[in-house]
Amino acid sequence: MAEASRTSEAHRDAVFARWVIFSPARSRRPTDLKSHGPANPSPGPDDGAPKPSCPFCLGRESECAPEIFRVPAPDESPSWRIRVIENLFPALRREAAPPAPEDEEPVGAGECAVRGFGFHDVVIETPHHEVRLWDLEAEGVRDVLLAYARRVQQLAEHPAVKYVQVFKNQGASAGASMAHSHSQMLGTPFVPPSVTSRLNCMKEVFERSGKCSLCAVVSKDILVSETHNFSAFVPFAASYPFEIWIVPRQHSSYFHETDQDKVLDLAGLLKSMLQKLCKQLNDSPFNYMIHSAPFGLSSSCLPYTHWFLQIVPQLSVIGGFEIGSGCHINPVFPEDAAKILREIDGSV
Amino acid sequence: MAEASRTSEAHRDAVFARWVIFSPARSRRPTDLKSHGPANPSPGPDDGAPKPSCPFCLGRESECAPEIFRVPAPDESPSWRIRVIENLFPALRREAAPPAPEDEEPVGAGECAVRGFGFHDVVIETPHHEVRLWDLEAEGVRDVLLAYARRVQQLAEHPAVKYVQVFKNQGASAGASMAHSHSQMLGTPFVPPSVTSRLNCMKEVFERSGKCSLCAVVSKDILVSETHNFSAFVPFAASYPFEIWIVPRQHSSYFHETDQDKVLDLAGLLKSMLQKLCKQLNDSPFNYMIHSAPFGLSSSCLPYTHWFLQIVPQLSVIGGFEIGSGCHINPVFPEDAAKILREIDGSV
Repeated sequence: MAEASRTSEAHRDAVFARWVIFSPARSRRPTDLKSHGPANPSPGPDDGAPKPSCPFCLGRESECAPEIFRVPAPDESPSWRIRVIENLFPALRREAAPPAPEDEEPVGAGECAVRGFGFHDVVIETPHHEVRLWDLEAEGVRDVLLAYARRVQQLAEHPAVKYVQVFKNQGASAGASMAHSHSQMLGTPFVPPSVTSRLNCMKEVFERSGKCSLCAVVSKDILVSETHNFSAFVPFAASYPFEIWIVPRQHSSYFHETDQDKVLDLAGLLKSMLQKLCKQLNDSPFNYMIHSAPFGLSSSCLPYTHWFLQIVPQLSVIGGFEIGSGCHINPVFPEDAAKILREIDGSV
Repeated sequence: MAEASRTSEAHRDAVFARWVIFSPARSRRPTDLKSHGPANPSPGPDDGAPKPSCPFCLGRESECAPEIFRVPAPDESPSWRIRVIENLFPALRREAAPPAPEDEEPVGAGECAVRGFGFHDVVIETPHHEVRLWDLEAEGVRDVLLAYARRVQQLAEHPAVKYVQVFKNQGASAGASMAHSHSQMLGTPFVPPSVTSRLNCMKEVFERSGKCSLCAVVSKDILVSETHNFSAFVPFAASYPFEIWIVPRQHSSYFHETDQDKVLDLAGLLKSMLQKLCKQLNDSPFNYMIHSAPFGLSSSCLPYTHWFLQIVPQLSVIGGFEIGSGCHINPVFPEDAAKILREIDGSV
């Protein structure tokens, strides 16, 4: 699409098969698009001291739900660098009985209800209240990613867990209820709807073209940065302004099977992307999600499943059009967002 | 599912095939769940006078984009009751060339880009700044719904328009940029993703059971109110707390083909539901969307397409789990929400 079409354009991607409307008229100029405020409105001074009311801070472990495992501090003191704990207010409950296969039979005309079995865990990324994920060294970010992978591997071994959604909410308007830097994961007894539609779309592309949708991404226009093992780019049909996908360059279905060296490479790129977004978007709230394959997939599905990490800044409100149609309106074209992000310093 | 399962439960519906996790633990008790503030933060006194800066108010018509049609005031003065106008900042542009069929061929591995052709219109529901939709008499709400239907009919006649999404954003945090009561509609040159997945799900249910998913809804537990022609209920897999669907009791594929008498019946029920939500949720922001069938559907699809109106209060923030998985977490079970809503006065 040439220069004349800059007024508006609709893109459909080959991963989710979602239409997105790019409409620069809906917003101010791309570079003016900054968050109205920082993700965490009124942090105290960065003195590293525990906050009296924060149960994620060092020394307040007894106020949390049970610990699953921890990454100890290097000096073997009682301290820790990362803790993986149960969520005190879990959406799904590990003590509930897993649904039996017959529970998933539709009731009435296709409706289905199952018990709320599942796992809802929290990864506390640092013992220090004011440290953000991208303030850590690349090795620190790597250890957080390795903690995700280790816990996903544990959950994968439970026969009733079909999928684990790993995600991070940064800032209250991105859904975080705690300011202390943390991520979450939910192990579900069903394959979630977006995972099903992603797999269906990628399967259809593979059957038609013989290609994995994510292996086939080649345009340099949308590339933000590249390492030996990973590419970071703005997707062709980005639903959110300045959305970034970090994708392994070598075809790979499962995030949690990534080897340690590659995870360090990923950690450096993730840190750099979060730094760039923080600078460009004034410490905007954001979410990231790891899109992996469901467990127990037949080997015929592996050629078209390719895991990736999606980062979405939360800059605008979702309205009735988006909720009703599933189609987002994005004021920033992907190649414009990629160009801006390439030019920002975010040293790895 | 019996009393013992009240801790948590997952439901999948037969319309969108979306899983929703019902988790009372994620929130305070249902009746405590109130909006943090009114939909429109600081409205002035309700004096009916035009607001100096509001182009939707009576007398400021020249500041708006062109008018498409108006519903005149009954006294045949130059005044009006409803105006349908073009959006001044359209997401899609009526003057763009419609995409040719070959434009929709995938580029690369299944990606697709089309010109941003389409229609983006606004329905100003009242000339008075402080009047909310549910403050109008049922006949006034009927006329707004008839204005939607008339405009949808006009857009249906354009060969390149595949779907019209009618929606209302009430309150800034539901996506409204203007406080003056209005709705919008977008006529798109593609069938939006949620419409495709809704039709696929309803087709599958129909092929398996011989039933339309929405004709088959029978549970009295989730019913809020019923008229001769419409049912209002909390859906089995409500994604949002206090979500309501208003569904024609007689099978019908297209909203815009509803006859005038039935539209008055719908208007009364819609007004009543909005009054109930306003009382229960402290004037919470909300969206509603009309889910109709795409244009030019083959007659074989009509038995399983059934239009409805979905109302979703905006009480909580959507986070990474919902964005990543497409699965919402709702703290209020549908039968609890329905019971609370049944007991609130919302006289038709």
